[in-house]
Amino acid sequence: MSDEEADPDDRNAGDTDGDLEAVLETVRERVDPSPDERERLRTVADRLAARAEDAATDLDSGADVLQAGSTARDTWISGDRDIDIFVRFPPELNRETLERYGLAVGHETLPEGHEEYAEHPYVKGTVEGFDIDVVPCFRLESATEIRSAVDRTPFHTQYLEARLDDDLAADVRLTKQFLKGIGSYGSDLRTRGFSGYLTELLVVEYGGFRELLEAATEWQPPVKLDPEDHGQETFTDPLVVIDPTDPERNVAAVCSAANVARFQHYARAVLDQPALEYFEADDPEPLSESELRAHLERRGTIPVAVRFEAPNVVEDQLYPQLYKSLSGVTQGLDDRDFDVFRGTTFADETAVIFAELTVAEQPGVERHQGPPVHVTGHAKGFYSAYADDPDTYGPFIEGGRYVAERERNFTTARGFLESERLFDVGLGAHVETALKDDYDVLVGDEITALLAEFGPELRQYFEPRP
Amino acid sequence: MSDEEADPDDRNAGDTDGDLEAVLETVRERVDPSPDERERLRTVADRLAARAEDAATDLDSGADVLQAGSTARDTWISGDRDIDIFVRFPPELNRETLERYGLAVGHETLPEGHEEYAEHPYVKGTVEGFDIDVVPCFRLESATEIRSAVDRTPFHTQYLEARLDDDLAADVRLTKQFLKGIGSYGSDLRTRGFSGYLTELLVVEYGGFRELLEAATEWQPPVKLDPEDHGQETFTDPLVVIDPTDPERNVAAVCSAANVARFQHYARAVLDQPALEYFEADDPEPLSESELRAHLERRGTIPVAVRFEAPNVVEDQLYPQLYKSLSGVTQGLDDRDFDVFRGTTFADETAVIFAELTVAEQPGVERHQGPPVHVTGHAKGFYSAYADDPDTYGPFIEGGRYVAERERNFTTARGFLESERLFDVGLGAHVETALKDDYDVLVGDEITALLAEFGPELRQYFEPRP
Repeated sequence: MSDEEADPDDRNAGDTDGDLEAVLETVRERVDPSPDERERLRTVADRLAARAEDAATDLDSGADVLQAGSTARDTWISGDRDIDIFVRFPPELNRETLERYGLAVGHETLPEGHEEYAEHPYVKGTVEGFDIDVVPCFRLESATEIRSAVDRTPFHTQYLEARLDDDLAADVRLTKQFLKGIGSYGSDLRTRGFSGYLTELLVVEYGGFRELLEAATEWQPPVKLDPEDHGQETFTDPLVVIDPTDPERNVAAVCSAANVARFQHYARAVLDQPALEYFEADDPEPLSESELRAHLERRGTIPVAVRFEAPNVVEDQLYPQLYKSLSGVTQGLDDRDFDVFRGTTFADETAVIFAELTVAEQPGVERHQGPPVHVTGHAKGFYSAYADDPDTYGPFIEGGRYVAERERNFTTARGFLESERLFDVGLGAHVETALKDDYDVLVGDEITALLAEFGPELRQYFEPRP
Repeated sequence: MSDEEADPDDRNAGDTDGDLEAVLETVRERVDPSPDERERLRTVADRLAARAEDAATDLDSGADVLQAGSTARDTWISGDRDIDIFVRFPPELNRETLERYGLAVGHETLPEGHEEYAEHPYVKGTVEGFDIDVVPCFRLESATEIRSAVDRTPFHTQYLEARLDDDLAADVRLTKQFLKGIGSYGSDLRTRGFSGYLTELLVVEYGGFRELLEAATEWQPPVKLDPEDHGQETFTDPLVVIDPTDPERNVAAVCSAANVARFQHYARAVLDQPALEYFEADDPEPLSESELRAHLERRGTIPVAVRFEAPNVVEDQLYPQLYKSLSGVTQGLDDRDFDVFRGTTFADETAVIFAELTVAEQPGVERHQGPPVHVTGHAKGFYSAYADDPDTYGPFIEGGRYVAERERNFTTARGFLESERLFDVGLGAHVETALKDDYDVLVGDEITALLAEFGPELRQYFEPRP
């Protein structure tokens, strides 16, 4: 998404801009699947569902089959290729049997498929360009009885199917595209944004996309919605949407304060000056070396980067560890007076903890304030500890206390980052292992070495937008 | 005083060290006036007092004459040359008459004398090497009725004369010498230490020098003494000694927390390891340029100095203004993230506000945190204020708030110190005037220029002791 504020001329480019309805009409043309596309998906989905049914029947497992997800609810966006087929087994089955049966049905349904593992193992495959998951779960009376997250999905599907008419489904597609445009779509732990289910609930709750936008501009976090008015627990999240199928669950639990604020910001922006760009995902050019040097020159900060081989774990494991490591390293730097101005973290082949410092060097001495001189015991201990130390200035007296000026452990940020003390800060487990294995510390211009792998991320960092 | 901790070998130098009584005996030999010296002073003092009496009588003013101060009470230290002669006029006199009569008596007493001005004008002169003050005051029933501070002196003299026997007087001399040795003697506003009267009261109250030392090691400030047990007011000073002649006055009001702590520290030190050096005033060699450079090299701090012509006011006016200016400049530097490590102030021909920085440069940008995005009015205002500003990064969103990174006003401490903004900080009135006239800013090695005028002060700063 290009910055609507930074290039005002682009803002009204295109004859559809300036009028929300006209903008939305254009967006619909892009996101609504054509009858033909819809037909193709429907055919494949139904055929595979039927196959799964037969396989389940052959097993005589008492299972039934259900199409789930956005493609089942017609809230999918043109180009989406995900088809979820849920095979619901009776709750009497034990977990092992469920998994064995589930894989059997999966392989029957997708002879070319392979096994993957979420909460249960399941079979994944590609048919005519569509990505198919055949997921086993338990058929339960209520979502409160679920044994794993996948058991919940059928309830979500049922709840929404009953409430989403064609108009609301169309508005869900607009909302999803808007969330993609502003970078807040997805409940993965990297984005910490709005899940598809959350999006659908919000559209249903407010009665449409425009209604949701208008409501969002007035949100006062914590925002609490409870469609079924059955929530008991209290949640501290900025956005709380009690799951209509489970009073104990906040559907928006993962949604960060930043994404809630971002949604409010862009809701105001698109209502003030409707424009297509809000519905166009940001795809930044890599930052060039000259641009990077220009930013460093202008900002005058000292960037430092800890770079290591990205741990081989899924993103939902990796990013929480990277975020934890970023705040740990930031704390470690701040504690030593290497003041962090702003920071971020990147991951691809390598992973990077990146911090921009205002202060990268400190003097050879640091103040150490002692006890008040009248606290006899401590005072004598402090004084005698330093009085004969040739590396210490003082102790002398300030106010009523002893003060000593002793040697500093680290006079440079690099010295700290390259030391064992780095492992005293809070690090994600796999990040710590990776660092123990090996890592590089880049300081100042050395970070140009990151451009090859993280050019677009560096542009986003150095050209920050809401 | 040489640092007893830093050169342990010196500590027991001299055969009198190690045993307090032996040390004190040596100190007595130094501070007790010889019979001959005492005789000479007595002769002069009595002759001048008699002269003042005659002059007062001639005036038929109803005045009487009183010798005051340490030379009257035999608590003076060998070498002191101050003789105070107080001429007490009846309270019925108005101020103008008192001053006219006072000067008349003064000039009769000291034909060679000249006029000076304290709370009243008075006559000062030198006779046979002694410095004589002839001070007019009112003769009142009680010190609570005083009209000016000098009216109080006769009451102090009377109170102490009644309580100081020869032994206590001798201990007062030891205590004064000890306070001089540790640099805490004097109630002037540069030292903010122990006045002569306070010293005498403390010795009387505790019954001797050693007793005072032993009590001081256990002081828990605020320390409250009230010899006459007549105080009503509550004071917040670290040391409170209610004036026996005035229940509303704390004799130790000017004594700083640092000097109270210093007295405790050295009381412990001299009792633990008696040594003559505690009774020998510090007279530091000027710091050499190579020593200064070595300290700067080792410390790695960045010294900055604001140097200007010393305002032509008495020290009791000058130093409070210098201290205020030092804390104002320190605040001004800290507020702009030029972190002050330690600072001090010097004055002679020129005056200097001196600060040692850990950070003397900052980046070109500074963070400016805006309101939470949900606070619609402020949020819109903040966003639109910066969104189109080419010199600002952002606004972007952190947590739920807008953040902008805007240009910093001052990227160097020198830039701030040389700017008009220096005059926004708290400065003493005469200091501000002097700075408005002209000042230099010295940074880093440039402070070697201070060595010529402030070599000893710089040694005390860079070799700090309790």
